[in-house]
Amino acid sequence: MKIIIDGNITSAKGFYSAGEHIGIKKFKKDLSLIYSEVEAEVAGVFTKNLVKAAPVVYCQKINSGGQKVKGIIVNSGNANACTGEQGYKDAEEMAEIFGKLLNTTPDKILVGSTGVIGVNLPMEKLRAGIPKVFNLLGTTYTHGEMALEGIMTTDTTRKKIAVEFELDGKIITVGGIAKGSGMIHPNMGTMLSYITTDANISKELLQKAMDISVVDTYNMISVDGDTSTNDCSLILANGLAGNDKISAEDKNFEKFCTALSYVNRFLAIEIVKDGEGATKLMEVHVSGAKDKATARLISKSVISSSLFKAALFGADANWGRVLCAMGYSGGEFDTSKVNIKFKSLVGEIELMKNSNPLKFSEELAKEILSEREITVNIELADGDGVSTAWGCDLTYDYVKINGDYRS
Amino acid sequence: MKIIIDGNITSAKGFYSAGEHIGIKKFKKDLSLIYSEVEAEVAGVFTKNLVKAAPVVYCQKINSGGQKVKGIIVNSGNANACTGEQGYKDAEEMAEIFGKLLNTTPDKILVGSTGVIGVNLPMEKLRAGIPKVFNLLGTTYTHGEMALEGIMTTDTTRKKIAVEFELDGKIITVGGIAKGSGMIHPNMGTMLSYITTDANISKELLQKAMDISVVDTYNMISVDGDTSTNDCSLILANGLAGNDKISAEDKNFEKFCTALSYVNRFLAIEIVKDGEGATKLMEVHVSGAKDKATARLISKSVISSSLFKAALFGADANWGRVLCAMGYSGGEFDTSKVNIKFKSLVGEIELMKNSNPLKFSEELAKEILSEREITVNIELADGDGVSTAWGCDLTYDYVKINGDYRS
Repeated sequence: MKIIIDGNITSAKGFYSAGEHIGIKKFKKDLSLIYSEVEAEVAGVFTKNLVKAAPVVYCQKINSGGQKVKGIIVNSGNANACTGEQGYKDAEEMAEIFGKLLNTTPDKILVGSTGVIGVNLPMEKLRAGIPKVFNLLGTTYTHGEMALEGIMTTDTTRKKIAVEFELDGKIITVGGIAKGSGMIHPNMGTMLSYITTDANISKELLQKAMDISVVDTYNMISVDGDTSTNDCSLILANGLAGNDKISAEDKNFEKFCTALSYVNRFLAIEIVKDGEGATKLMEVHVSGAKDKATARLISKSVISSSLFKAALFGADANWGRVLCAMGYSGGEFDTSKVNIKFKSLVGEIELMKNSNPLKFSEELAKEILSEREITVNIELADGDGVSTAWGCDLTYDYVKINGDYRS
Repeated sequence: MKIIIDGNITSAKGFYSAGEHIGIKKFKKDLSLIYSEVEAEVAGVFTKNLVKAAPVVYCQKINSGGQKVKGIIVNSGNANACTGEQGYKDAEEMAEIFGKLLNTTPDKILVGSTGVIGVNLPMEKLRAGIPKVFNLLGTTYTHGEMALEGIMTTDTTRKKIAVEFELDGKIITVGGIAKGSGMIHPNMGTMLSYITTDANISKELLQKAMDISVVDTYNMISVDGDTSTNDCSLILANGLAGNDKISAEDKNFEKFCTALSYVNRFLAIEIVKDGEGATKLMEVHVSGAKDKATARLISKSVISSSLFKAALFGADANWGRVLCAMGYSGGEFDTSKVNIKFKSLVGEIELMKNSNPLKFSEELAKEILSEREITVNIELADGDGVSTAWGCDLTYDYVKINGDYRS
């Protein structure tokens, strides 16, 4: 597998995209279009929040229909969530307008929205804006970047990637874009990520690959513990790579899953790194848990602890908060056999061994925790369950950004 | 029922207490002693965190023994949590020293600790300090306040109360003290609260009264979502009020429960009001849920949302975050019939009616949310489940306090 320099959703064959400002936000790009020149299989994972935004409900319906699709339309600046019946009608109309321009039916168009909750979409701006963005569509790297900009909200970094690998002599490309950066605690897909691939794969296996992949990628990150109403991760596979169709869980399917998970993990970590106000990335690695589910509960609990996140911000080696978060995670473990280490580029430090606190150099600890990327290693003695989760620190800026998000 | 002005744990008959600085913290009081002149029934509720501090494990053992007890010894400045086998020995030694001074056995003494996690207790300071504090013991209001100061850490307010009521012509008093103010997301008792009463009541019913009471009081508050390793709420009942023993779930038991719940609710709300860095109290009231358990899940999810807590800090009427937190609470409800209102001293504002967003005055909303106490009213249409939860805003100061807690 190879990473494509300057890769994104236009890296795979046959994908067009564009993004532009149409007036939903004050100045920044707020509408993106993506489409495949030939119809593509689609698979998606969606928020498990009981309160689902209109476009999520709409996409779930399209995805369960089983038909191939042509494109995706996404606006930022307004989440079209908690918007009543009108919200669903607006999502349908967005699909209808883009579908008409593509000479196809609305049921071949997927819809996404992100931004403020509880305000109806300014449809007159969308009606005027969609044809304008349609005229900008193209297949270059720059077109992919325009689409990426159109889905960003409080994001400060560009989250995109593409990889390629060989299958039976054919080059398969998988590329993706994503946006964060608050209300991030995904439970089955994160707040808007879009993956394109030219792989030839059945819809059933495409969905399976996504389902497998999100468990260890998007579902293992958290910025603030808030599972969004809009979480939605979609993949389009248009088959233009020309490989023999992947239609069984064979070696080729595994290769595809490896590439997809690489892309999803990369995007998930990018989202956390750019968590609202975040200055540091923490990776929490749990090994020796009695099973994988337990390892997941424990690692996710640690990255979600407000107290540990604040300690990380202050570069304070308050490892007791790690053990505390492990304890309320819901995962069972032998509390008398816990080892905890902190690690970063500048060194490693052991804090607890067999559940006994160790003396450690506060100076070295401070140095380690002052780096931008910190790993917490937790070793248990209950089995071979392993898991990694990614989180960020809790900072003044998180409070600032979210104290006045709507203005 | 009557609230006693200047009431605390010495309000009930026969309770002695004291608190003083013995050198665990730099300057502030760090050791408290409480005892009853006659042996008292005890009941306790303890953290459900799998990682329990040594004094919690110790108290659970004493509480399950069934014997009456004489006193409680509590230090602040060090949580004696995650301290290995030595931690448990230290808790036992604290009980032994205090017990010897009271001419009783260690199994009649309860122990508490709060403060930094992962550092062994400075036992030489405790050995020297306990007799000094013992010599200060007394039964006045001031003695109760000394004990309260001895258990405080980042607290900025004094959390204490006492109430009295009549039972068969006898006056019964119930008084309590508590400390917050971070790592607060109790699951069966909160980080140190101590209740004394002169009621004559069986141990079994005393425990039952506590179990009933914590569900709607301590367990319905959250400062930061972190369930502490040290949560522990204890009540001593010494019977000196002289009432006929409460030994059945009759009307007298109910009266006692009412008074106890009043005390516990008051202390719980005081803890949240003084949440680390908090500037505002939010009360979230859910009605019309399909049952009480669902109402609890929903109300507690809203008070725990980092995003809504930050919006509250900024007085931003971002009610979509309320609905979002309801949706991921795990409680089921009809998402098409939700009503949401914000209310404070200066007025009330309706934001969502039958799940449709309403136009509202941003100015009035800002005024309402700028008050120190804000109520969020959520009406559902699924049944008659009702619940109230209490939380606080997320502020710069929370991050500041927890970014460098140990120095």
